[in-house]
Amino acid sequence: MAKSAFKNDFGDRIRTLREERNLSQEGLADAAKLHRTHISLIERGERSVRLETIEALARAFGVQPADLMPSIVL
Amino acid sequence: MAKSAFKNDFGDRIRTLREERNLSQEGLADAAKLHRTHISLIERGERSVRLETIEALARAFGVQPADLMPSIVL
Repeated sequence: MAKSAFKNDFGDRIRTLREERNLSQEGLADAAKLHRTHISLIERGERSVRLETIEALARAFGVQPADLMPSIVL
Repeated sequence: MAKSAFKNDFGDRIRTLREERNLSQEGLADAAKLHRTHISLIERGERSVRLETIEALARAFGVQPADLMPSIVL
């Protein structure tokens, strides 16, 4: 899967929120009902995340999906 | 692809933004470099959208990706 700035920024955002909550990748995976390997790939910008996963991560963090979205230069 | 409230809400959001701009599905497809059939499936909540597509749609609309995200009940 090709990397992109947007995916990298999304991955950074997920890692930041996870670390703010003192969650391990395993802990986040459990909370979001995802596989730990999936979390690792997302954080490294190597996985293209789908809407369902965005929703699951938002619920695991207790934030709105919009809060997970990186900004882009328009 | 199973439907979900979140995907349906995302599709509704895309349709609303498209219609506000008086764009046809073909016009949005051209602007976002997606296939018209893809736009149609997204708007009906029948396609799980990936990060790249969210970015492409945001750029086509001239809005931030966060503006495309439906709210969820936390």
